[in-house]
Amino acid sequence: MSAPVVEGRVSPEAVGAVLARVREQAPLVHCMTNVVVAGFTANVLLAVGASPAMVENDEESAEFAAMADALLVNLGTLSAERARAMRLATAAARAAGTPWVLDPVAVGPLAFRTTLAAELLAQRPRVIRGNPSEVLSLAGAAGGGRGVDSTAEPARAVPAAQDLVARTGGAVAVSGAVDHLVDATRVLQVHTGHPLMTAVTGVGCALGALVAACCAVEDDPLTAAAAATAGLTVAAEVAAGNSSGPGSFAVALVDSLYHLDDDTLARHLERR
Amino acid sequence: MSAPVVEGRVSPEAVGAVLARVREQAPLVHCMTNVVVAGFTANVLLAVGASPAMVENDEESAEFAAMADALLVNLGTLSAERARAMRLATAAARAAGTPWVLDPVAVGPLAFRTTLAAELLAQRPRVIRGNPSEVLSLAGAAGGGRGVDSTAEPARAVPAAQDLVARTGGAVAVSGAVDHLVDATRVLQVHTGHPLMTAVTGVGCALGALVAACCAVEDDPLTAAAAATAGLTVAAEVAAGNSSGPGSFAVALVDSLYHLDDDTLARHLERR
Amino acid sequence: MSAPVVEGRVSPEAVGAVLARVREQAPLVHCMTNVVVAGFTANVLLAVGASPAMVENDEESAEFAAMADALLVNLGTLSAERARAMRLATAAARAAGTPWVLDPVAVGPLAFRTTLAAELLAQRPRVIRGNPSEVLSLAGAAGGGRGVDSTAEPARAVPAAQDLVARTGGAVAVSGAVDHLVDATRVLQVHTGHPLMTAVTGVGCALGALVAACCAVEDDPLTAAAAATAGLTVAAEVAAGNSSGPGSFAVALVDSLYHLDDDTLARHLERR
Repeated sequence: MSAPVVEGRVSPEAVGAVLARVREQAPLVHCMTNVVVAGFTANVLLAVGASPAMVENDEESAEFAAMADALLVNLGTLSAERARAMRLATAAARAAGTPWVLDPVAVGPLAFRTTLAAELLAQRPRVIRGNPSEVLSLAGAAGGGRGVDSTAEPARAVPAAQDLVARTGGAVAVSGAVDHLVDATRVLQVHTGHPLMTAVTGVGCALGALVAACCAVEDDPLTAAAAATAGLTVAAEVAAGNSSGPGSFAVALVDSLYHLDDDTLARHLERR
Repeated sequence: MSAPVVEGRVSPEAVGAVLARVREQAPLVHCMTNVVVAGFTANVLLAVGASPAMVENDEESAEFAAMADALLVNLGTLSAERARAMRLATAAARAAGTPWVLDPVAVGPLAFRTTLAAELLAQRPRVIRGNPSEVLSLAGAAGGGRGVDSTAEPARAVPAAQDLVARTGGAVAVSGAVDHLVDATRVLQVHTGHPLMTAVTGVGCALGALVAACCAVEDDPLTAAAAATAGLTVAAEVAAGNSSGPGSFAVALVDSLYHLDDDTLARHLERR
Repeated sequence: MSAPVVEGRVSPEAVGAVLARVREQAPLVHCMTNVVVAGFTANVLLAVGASPAMVENDEESAEFAAMADALLVNLGTLSAERARAMRLATAAARAAGTPWVLDPVAVGPLAFRTTLAAELLAQRPRVIRGNPSEVLSLAGAAGGGRGVDSTAEPARAVPAAQDLVARTGGAVAVSGAVDHLVDATRVLQVHTGHPLMTAVTGVGCALGALVAACCAVEDDPLTAAAAATAGLTVAAEVAAGNSSGPGSFAVALVDSLYHLDDDTLARHLERR
């Protein structure tokens, strides 16, 4: 990448402004996500004021993607029918101008979904959200030639993320202990979060859904990804203080997202 | 509709009697519902003492509908296979005399499920449970010619509900801030409930499942719908007092359904 | 069965040792399970330190079963595609030496899955986990000629379990108020547990998943089944003391599994 890269932090004011618009506009988020996390994802979206709807069959997915305010495509629990529905939905989203987010779950080790993910890149996801291994694999599958590295730190996946940005024109959110948000000219880091986020299923998947909700109200993909990431990770810090293990943490996370306000965002983001 | 319409309230004694029979008889409720809410629905049914089982494939759905005590058909996360399985299950339910409940999720904007819902009406659901827009759309799709109105109040959907009752011979439960329960001669209102019910995914879907459980033990569809609606909304009032956001509310709702007793029903229903 | 049967209890030390290895090795558990319990199952596995992944389509299931450390096959919410994927996955697991667990949900009353379960026995599940009725039915479907008995006590299903063991060379875990764990020469009883376990959906299914995780780190199938059963039932006793109904019990169960230690195991297992 030859673009000048600016490293930076996330502004609490920008995060708060995007989340306020989500709450005001209640965007309809079309979720095509895996069955493991569908309920949790819907509850996370409702907690921030978005309006989730799961439509995943090939009879309805294109029709719905065209009328929704944003679309999430998460490759967990893929099936041949879901793959067909995702092809139709992402094409319809692109044609209708619906921003869409790709969460390439488990891309790399499994051939079927790796091929699908590479194909879906052509429909230009506004944001790609994944862990470092998935981002590295997706960039490789798309021609970058990088392999899988399941123990990678987010920083190591930044060049792969930049490759993907060059193809999609959007942004990439690389999740990890320090999230790295990448577009053509910037790399933002988000330092908030808590280890319990990895002890509950679906937190990363819910982040993808939050990014989609933010893309519905914010045209800049990096800002949308930053707002979602900062919002969820700050809420996780609050929730960790109100829970006694991963079960109660998942419950408290939904509560803390529901109550998230500008003061909490400022307090948590500024001290990290 | 030329039938004389009697408006009324729900009797706590009638509600308590139906819920007591659910607990005593533990009816087997065959659920064909969406993947987002399947776990929550099962837990709500278990909390009131019913026995849920999810069977949604076209190899088994008819066989199981014939042996179950009630059947729920919820159109969320529809697929072509689920649609086939629903056609088979509702036909088998009708043939076997198994009461069944239709929850026409998102009927109206999406053509595939709107057509399916209109077709399923011919199998005479004992109760239809939906929000005002869904009830209006379903009546329209069935020939009433009404359009979709996503912001409709339940009261506005009463004539559409009466149209549907004329076709099915059963009852319609229109959900909202004040639930309206409609059969050929009566309109009952249920005033209990809490705004957090709309901040959690699957509360409406779980209501459809509770209606099915009540239909297994109560032949009058309006009474069954009223018992389920009053039970859930009273439990929601209790749960709202024991929670600090939508995450803990969903957990408390299952707990409060499990402990729901006649005194609590009387106290909450009589003051509203 | 002519083998000498030794009856016994579970040693807290053996349980603790297996669970410690799960936490250290974080085995990748390939779950093919029903949509009702998928999220809860994943959270239970994460709570004990295992790494769950749900892959259920026929394009990927064999590939993934060969790379996973253990495989769970749970027949709830079966479909024709899932059945195909399960045939492929279990064959791949057997070929690769991946231990796999069969949970024959609702086998007996439903013909399609009863036939499938009997067929899958040929792939030699390391452990079969079911309630007494399911174990009786599975043994009958496999040639033993026993019928279904939905009210059976675990003790009554021990001969059927021994028939199955003779076919698979593994172990059978019969769940109930007193769990009975059976292999060719032994019958272990686990007396820990709590009635709230049956008031929450997916506790039995999560036990099947825990057995799979234990099989990944413990070669003796009876010891693996005993560790999973004892761990979950002790955690349930702890959780019951920290909850006020089935909703909060399910949350507390995940928390108590996360914090389960040798002292707690010893204290609960030794007094029962």
